[in-house]
Amino acid sequence: MSILIVGSIALDTIETPLGKKEDILGGSAVYSAASAGFFSSVNLVGVVGSDFPRKYISLLKKRNVGLEGLEVRKGRTFRWSGRYSWNFNEAETISTHLNVFSEFRPKIPPVYKESEYVFLANIDPDLQKEVLKQVKKPKLIFCDTMNHWIANKRGQLIRTLKDVDVFFLNDSEARQLTGKRNLIKAARVIQGFGPEKVVVKKGEHGVLLFLGKRFFCLPAFLLEDVFDPTGAGDSFAGGFIGYLAGKGKVSAQYFKEAAVYGSITASFAVEDFSLNRLLSISRKNIEDRVRKFRKLSSF
Amino acid sequence: MSILIVGSIALDTIETPLGKKEDILGGSAVYSAASAGFFSSVNLVGVVGSDFPRKYISLLKKRNVGLEGLEVRKGRTFRWSGRYSWNFNEAETISTHLNVFSEFRPKIPPVYKESEYVFLANIDPDLQKEVLKQVKKPKLIFCDTMNHWIANKRGQLIRTLKDVDVFFLNDSEARQLTGKRNLIKAARVIQGFGPEKVVVKKGEHGVLLFLGKRFFCLPAFLLEDVFDPTGAGDSFAGGFIGYLAGKGKVSAQYFKEAAVYGSITASFAVEDFSLNRLLSISRKNIEDRVRKFRKLSSF
Repeated sequence: MSILIVGSIALDTIETPLGKKEDILGGSAVYSAASAGFFSSVNLVGVVGSDFPRKYISLLKKRNVGLEGLEVRKGRTFRWSGRYSWNFNEAETISTHLNVFSEFRPKIPPVYKESEYVFLANIDPDLQKEVLKQVKKPKLIFCDTMNHWIANKRGQLIRTLKDVDVFFLNDSEARQLTGKRNLIKAARVIQGFGPEKVVVKKGEHGVLLFLGKRFFCLPAFLLEDVFDPTGAGDSFAGGFIGYLAGKGKVSAQYFKEAAVYGSITASFAVEDFSLNRLLSISRKNIEDRVRKFRKLSSF
Repeated sequence: MSILIVGSIALDTIETPLGKKEDILGGSAVYSAASAGFFSSVNLVGVVGSDFPRKYISLLKKRNVGLEGLEVRKGRTFRWSGRYSWNFNEAETISTHLNVFSEFRPKIPPVYKESEYVFLANIDPDLQKEVLKQVKKPKLIFCDTMNHWIANKRGQLIRTLKDVDVFFLNDSEARQLTGKRNLIKAARVIQGFGPEKVVVKKGEHGVLLFLGKRFFCLPAFLLEDVFDPTGAGDSFAGGFIGYLAGKGKVSAQYFKEAAVYGSITASFAVEDFSLNRLLSISRKNIEDRVRKFRKLSSF
């Protein structure tokens, strides 16, 4: 089953205590597409500027990401620059230049409109809504967001959520969106906005998975060395959705397994800058780590 | 197998957004003994003042806690007063009055000296060391501590740890003690101090269990309503040690199960002030919640 992913494509400049990289491939659509690609075929809709390096395009093609919906506009690609301290928990944004992304209006190519799995990766909730107007009865609609949209486009986000089946957000965003500190209560409020399934990402502390009235918790795969946490959430979502789409069927069990696969895919993503680590591994490496994870988290 | 617990016995005054209680039964030895008592017989060594309410003594006796080592000194009982905001993660200490506790020198009754399981609950590391001088070859020595001792008696704590088999501490304490932010690295440093087994408590985020070179992670049993988190860590340790002592044998599997039982015992402790909730439940309630927990954390 093919997945349609609409989101950002960026050139990131990242500083961590371990090094600095300029204009490396990033963005919510890129990380999630590369991650979903381990499990399913993926089509991407997004925009880049005329300065976007050709090598990055061939790199995405090599990962079997369909690029029919990749718009190349005159101008500069969206750029984000951020810094992490030794506490890798949160990035400090140094600068954001929307560039061509500021005029982005997602146009879904006709052949993608029948996608069964649609992922609204982290972009403006108004654009996410525009995507939903163009697709035809997807089996499952997934959505991600960030603190910026909760603070500045709360109403629009809640409108978009009405049609969403599975909503990904992190713990602080869940609290910000609902005003509830307790995550069970926060998830119940979010379910009231529309999504029957809410996935609360807690970084190094794992994931809470709310499926209707039931919920499940999963610890994270603990790493001794994190290199660059950029894209961890997007990789989690990509692995999660990819795994489900690869199964082609939906069940509570598959959702739980999807959270494991999302978690493990993200654990690789943070081991190097950009997609470097994800591009160096195969599905087999993921399966090996899933087995290791099951061992160390089964009681 | 009997467990010897040496620690504090306190009269706590607690303020939470849900209410305030004055001079209620608390202290590291009290919470851990009441929790261990679900699984094994327990003997307590500690000190109270002449003002210590008789009802609390009969209450501990009812929980089958041996009180031959309870010293009653002329003067006032140790008092602690703390406040929690809606973020229940950390208490703000309003006041600490050591009172009779300031002159406490643990004297282990002869009949307790052969205890196979010894728990040095959170007290001054110098006193913990004095306990170890008095006991004869325990099978397992468990130890807990707090940020205050790490900051003010680091050297003494590390000396005590030399003889400890299982060390309980929370994530921020592990970082404070070692200077390592990564918890795997922090645990490795702590193991270098002596304890082969290190249990890092992460509150609502669960537990990391380091057994020699292997480690395991366990999410917490998520509660919709936390009433008073005082004693959560002590109850965790008590349930953990009690479960192991009840088994009478030591294995990696039993250690993992002990973490589950500790976690579930603590989840009850925080549902009311003082020991109120722990005194209202039976072993069966614990088993029921363990089953529920296994369901929601098995993938």
